[in-house]
Amino acid sequence: MTTAEIIAVGSELLLGGRVDTNSLFLSESLAEHGIEVRFKSVVGDDVEDIGVAVTNAVRRARLVLITGGLGPTVDDVTREAVACVTGKPLRLRPRALESITRRLHSAGRAVTANQRRQAFLPTGARLLHNTAGIAPGFAVEWKRCRIACLPGVSHEARRMCAESLLPVLRRAGLLSSAIETRTIQTFGLLEGEINDRIAGLLPASGAFRLGLLASPLGVSVSLTRSKTVQRMQARKRSVTQASTSLDALMGAVMTELGPDVVSIDGQTMEEVVGHRLHDRGLTIALAESCTGGLIAHRLTRVAGSSAYVDRGVVCYDNRAKTELLGVSEPLLKKYGAVSAQVAKAMAQGVRKRSHVDVGLSVTGIAGPSGGTGHKPVGLVYVGLATSKGASTAAFRFHGERDAITLRASQAALDVLRRWLCHGCPRPPSGSGIGPDGGSKDL
Amino acid sequence: MTTAEIIAVGSELLLGGRVDTNSLFLSESLAEHGIEVRFKSVVGDDVEDIGVAVTNAVRRARLVLITGGLGPTVDDVTREAVACVTGKPLRLRPRALESITRRLHSAGRAVTANQRRQAFLPTGARLLHNTAGIAPGFAVEWKRCRIACLPGVSHEARRMCAESLLPVLRRAGLLSSAIETRTIQTFGLLEGEINDRIAGLLPASGAFRLGLLASPLGVSVSLTRSKTVQRMQARKRSVTQASTSLDALMGAVMTELGPDVVSIDGQTMEEVVGHRLHDRGLTIALAESCTGGLIAHRLTRVAGSSAYVDRGVVCYDNRAKTELLGVSEPLLKKYGAVSAQVAKAMAQGVRKRSHVDVGLSVTGIAGPSGGTGHKPVGLVYVGLATSKGASTAAFRFHGERDAITLRASQAALDVLRRWLCHGCPRPPSGSGIGPDGGSKDL
Repeated sequence: MTTAEIIAVGSELLLGGRVDTNSLFLSESLAEHGIEVRFKSVVGDDVEDIGVAVTNAVRRARLVLITGGLGPTVDDVTREAVACVTGKPLRLRPRALESITRRLHSAGRAVTANQRRQAFLPTGARLLHNTAGIAPGFAVEWKRCRIACLPGVSHEARRMCAESLLPVLRRAGLLSSAIETRTIQTFGLLEGEINDRIAGLLPASGAFRLGLLASPLGVSVSLTRSKTVQRMQARKRSVTQASTSLDALMGAVMTELGPDVVSIDGQTMEEVVGHRLHDRGLTIALAESCTGGLIAHRLTRVAGSSAYVDRGVVCYDNRAKTELLGVSEPLLKKYGAVSAQVAKAMAQGVRKRSHVDVGLSVTGIAGPSGGTGHKPVGLVYVGLATSKGASTAAFRFHGERDAITLRASQAALDVLRRWLCHGCPRPPSGSGIGPDGGSKDL
Repeated sequence: MTTAEIIAVGSELLLGGRVDTNSLFLSESLAEHGIEVRFKSVVGDDVEDIGVAVTNAVRRARLVLITGGLGPTVDDVTREAVACVTGKPLRLRPRALESITRRLHSAGRAVTANQRRQAFLPTGARLLHNTAGIAPGFAVEWKRCRIACLPGVSHEARRMCAESLLPVLRRAGLLSSAIETRTIQTFGLLEGEINDRIAGLLPASGAFRLGLLASPLGVSVSLTRSKTVQRMQARKRSVTQASTSLDALMGAVMTELGPDVVSIDGQTMEEVVGHRLHDRGLTIALAESCTGGLIAHRLTRVAGSSAYVDRGVVCYDNRAKTELLGVSEPLLKKYGAVSAQVAKAMAQGVRKRSHVDVGLSVTGIAGPSGGTGHKPVGLVYVGLATSKGASTAAFRFHGERDAITLRASQAALDVLRRWLCHGCPRPPSGSGIGPDGGSKDL
């Protein structure tokens, strides 16, 4: 199995405030082609530091992917660093300059001296075309390792990886079948609870690796066939049998976790509920207080959501709750805006006023201020109104404002999911109520 | 100057789908105390791989921070890896077990065998208390380097860093004054345009490093006093003079960039407009179509926003535009939902119906489908209604659905910002209209 390392270049990635996201999709693309990423590193815009990172990586991996530092500005030094380490001096590549010139001309711009620098590549490098931007990428061979440099701009790197890099790696015979891994997204159980419930399902042979990862969006369970076993089985040509057993294990785990399973293999909560709404031909309207539009935003992120999302109302103000949703002033006065009664009235109100099938509401205290002994920060009520009536669920979340709103949005969507998929909006058992236990946060 | 490296442990960080965010605030905290992070790396839950990463880091840095892999599950192996590399075997630390037991008891739970594993620390390690969760952290000295292990859970790591780790480092004399860096967030200019306009302002001495970084939220400009100069000046004790000149440079850059400057030193767009609305005692209501609640969500993320955000309306459906905002059906029919006329009517409608000072609206085509030759994917109209009348701005964004909505939300908030801060909602010159040029995306 080919192993790879990813180096993200950029001082901004070290100083904080900005995170390297390119390595996410690169890791995924590589895994789909059987290449395992074993190390990722981040270095600043410094020729020497990049050189050290490349030298270390080349020692361990057959493939080193570098992203960033290919731009036109003075702090873009990846080309220099690779030239320096590999001893392959930079030379002007006419084909690279041509494509830079063409792209700038088509936008009515001329090539500046800085932009011209981008066409200087290490001698003998293979040019990787940038069909989404200006900076060309390249790949060089050095010490039995392939070093490929992609732009830091995400959509450019993505396109270059698919269109130019993967074909190059395929021709070099570095790609193979995917690493077998499956993931199950859950909501409503703590990491430790899941561990206790499914640890016994894994064969003692160590043929599978279990990974648990908690976040405000729930715990994700990953099952990966161990590399050693994968290699052994490939030799014995009993891949089918082994693959069956990963599916069988998945089945057993999903049965054990039951309705707390949100999705498999990466579908998000909003995609799950969106597809279900779409399939059942149901429309929805949202009434959000403390989540401030986050649920509407998450639902409408899914392409095609205009078919089932009718509208959303963000009613931070009590007057807005009355005017837009018809929540009565005496009710607000009697129970307060953060109450099961108001959550229910909001869901019913938005459903009735927008003539949709489902009304979903959230009201709560996101903090940092506004909490009381009786109604602490993190207290959230979710309301669900359908043709069958209305129900509410109470949650208590911990963390900062952002974490509380994110958890609240996920809990509300989960109430909807349980109703759509299992006919029951019962809130999950361990959902944020009680201590954080052994769970991990984002 | 002390240099540090950060190692994030977790196979999920390598497989894709999940990004290491802890290193962001760790880098920031360290920079505030004069410690420069020169490398960051990510390794899987593998004793051997963690060992290699630690060994490499110890060679280069005085401080190595490891996050993650301290939990109770079988894939948490950071303790073992550090014990192995440093030759300091794991021993049960009664004080660590006590605090684990106390925390679990207070939540009405017993200590399981797995949770007990978390109390085994390398011999001679200094215990770092976890006041926000269960897993204890620790710090060991090895080969003149300090290795500190923090939990992967973000808020636990944050708390442990502030409460336990920084005091330990301070006592060890590793902290000094902050690395001098300032950032300016802009919106409306391309990276190349900014480079051309301000490159000439930097002194030729190389005393400052300029960093430019583009994202859908605009281009961020960072100015850092170079380490060499900083060290020289520290010796000459002329820090004040140097600090003045960083401020003077900041002033010159800000003057040059004018109203395209959104904020300095990390304030977000929503914080800038939120504070300005608050200071001026203005209230706002939002009418969102293609941004689907993202603007409302961003504005309400700011603590205290309930004082000025009255409500938000997500009207995906034309009927909702008519019912909730009073946009006339003939207008929708004549110009289409995505038009300057409808954007204006939406802003006026939401302002009037909610009796607020400012109405802000967005309508556009987020894609991937729904575009036509005349109205392509990425076409977005922003409307702003105030007591002085209403205006609109048109934008054309590129990228995928998520990027288009994010850019649209930023452009709308920027229209509002220009009106609040400069009395003019004129859309920025290069804002997404035309080619992406030399700009970089997130």
